[in-house]
Amino acid sequence: MQSNYRPSLSQQGRNPTHAVSAVNEYGEAVDVSIPGELALTIHLEESEIVTLMTLGTRPEELALGYIRNQRLIDDIHAVKSVKVDWDKQLVMIETHSEHVAKDWRNKMFKRIVTSGCGQGTIFASTLEELAKTTLPDAKLSQASIYRLIKNISEHNAVYKTAGAVHGCALCCGEEMLIHVEDVGRHNAADAIAGYMWLEDLQGGDKIFYTTGRLTSEMVMKAAFMGIPAILSRSGITQMGLDLAKQLGMTLIARAKGKHFLVYNGAENISFDDKPAPR
Amino acid sequence: MQSNYRPSLSQQGRNPTHAVSAVNEYGEAVDVSIPGELALTIHLEESEIVTLMTLGTRPEELALGYIRNQRLIDDIHAVKSVKVDWDKQLVMIETHSEHVAKDWRNKMFKRIVTSGCGQGTIFASTLEELAKTTLPDAKLSQASIYRLIKNISEHNAVYKTAGAVHGCALCCGEEMLIHVEDVGRHNAADAIAGYMWLEDLQGGDKIFYTTGRLTSEMVMKAAFMGIPAILSRSGITQMGLDLAKQLGMTLIARAKGKHFLVYNGAENISFDDKPAPR
Repeated sequence: MQSNYRPSLSQQGRNPTHAVSAVNEYGEAVDVSIPGELALTIHLEESEIVTLMTLGTRPEELALGYIRNQRLIDDIHAVKSVKVDWDKQLVMIETHSEHVAKDWRNKMFKRIVTSGCGQGTIFASTLEELAKTTLPDAKLSQASIYRLIKNISEHNAVYKTAGAVHGCALCCGEEMLIHVEDVGRHNAADAIAGYMWLEDLQGGDKIFYTTGRLTSEMVMKAAFMGIPAILSRSGITQMGLDLAKQLGMTLIARAKGKHFLVYNGAENISFDDKPAPR
Repeated sequence: MQSNYRPSLSQQGRNPTHAVSAVNEYGEAVDVSIPGELALTIHLEESEIVTLMTLGTRPEELALGYIRNQRLIDDIHAVKSVKVDWDKQLVMIETHSEHVAKDWRNKMFKRIVTSGCGQGTIFASTLEELAKTTLPDAKLSQASIYRLIKNISEHNAVYKTAGAVHGCALCCGEEMLIHVEDVGRHNAADAIAGYMWLEDLQGGDKIFYTTGRLTSEMVMKAAFMGIPAILSRSGITQMGLDLAKQLGMTLIARAKGKHFLVYNGAENISFDDKPAPR
């Protein structure tokens, strides 16, 4: 196991937007952009794991992050290569077999279809591992949250052009380290997990940002990445909140402009930049 | 097989919203509502089909619609009862076994995780049936689209109270027949399919409305319901558009106020209420 190890990756990211013609309310033909949506079936060695529908900009990181967030492989050194073939709509993950956990096939037995916008599947065995997860306390300041929101708002490129995607970002303090858009926020989250795995980044000092809603699945994915704080432009669900409380995760939602609501972990936030009283 | 047949249904719809306390940007505690998110595992006879995360307001129709849209049972007369037990997080579908297709277990072999907001799973065998689907041409007028949008905007109760849900509606002309909200738009669509199945409603003269994005899965679900027109407040993806073109489905997206974009089937719309020139 060398340090700075990286598996061999294909470079098959796709252009996210496509020009099409539509007819507007005046009956006029107009040129508009829409996001791509591509089927991508993940193969781990000879086994087919799942088919995801994705924007396709970061297919290698998406496949790696999916495998990682489902806890099918624990060590990046076990991954030999990740090769995408769009003609066949598949991504092949090859492993150094000596590193691969023997039980990953067992983990695939039961899948759960999770909710809503940015939904996906979770293997039931994955949930059992969640209980073992411990997160450090987040330490956040309101001023740096505001600067982070401003930094992030300059991205969301596909959304601005074509709509119909969600953005997720990995952040450290007020800095955005990586921003990923996809047709499903769960895919964007998995691609970020793949990036962290490749770059050997730990989650303890990070913030996970998403434009999407904080359902239980998004809280789980952040927990598996070891990230103790989530910031969302949208709302949360009851199970997302319940899980965050169990995990001790700081949960900030409805973050737009100067407004936000802290649903869990307000004690971890320094309110050092309160807006002028209303 | 009697007419007006209805299976026995439990009445276990849950209250969709929950009051919780949050802390706002002034550091003040505020009372807010958030939507529920409940796990519900569908059992068809002794077999576990899938676990869905749902708002829980229409669990019986959701379970029926899921089974129906996956083409696991073709005839409502085959369904004896649908019973929800929230304590066990499951819904049991019992059948009159003489009516049940023998091959539904085979259909469960391969699942595809579909995209994004309103995502879900589709059984691969389900896709094969899509090619057999033929839809009538939609006949729409701009004036009635505007009246329909106005009628729908008076609903979305959970979204207005608690956010973080999607709404779907089954419409006929400018009339809204049923409106369902859920944490995932795919669940809302399935619950509408369950309602249509129970009420023996055909889709040919209907419009399917959704607040969510028109990914391939939403187009498929509308096609399986036999509905030839979709109206969305959000955008569309390339695969959603490609499928709609194959199916001859009229696709109207970005519908807000007087604005909309027709991505497919503009020839089926009478532009009889164009806004004043800009």
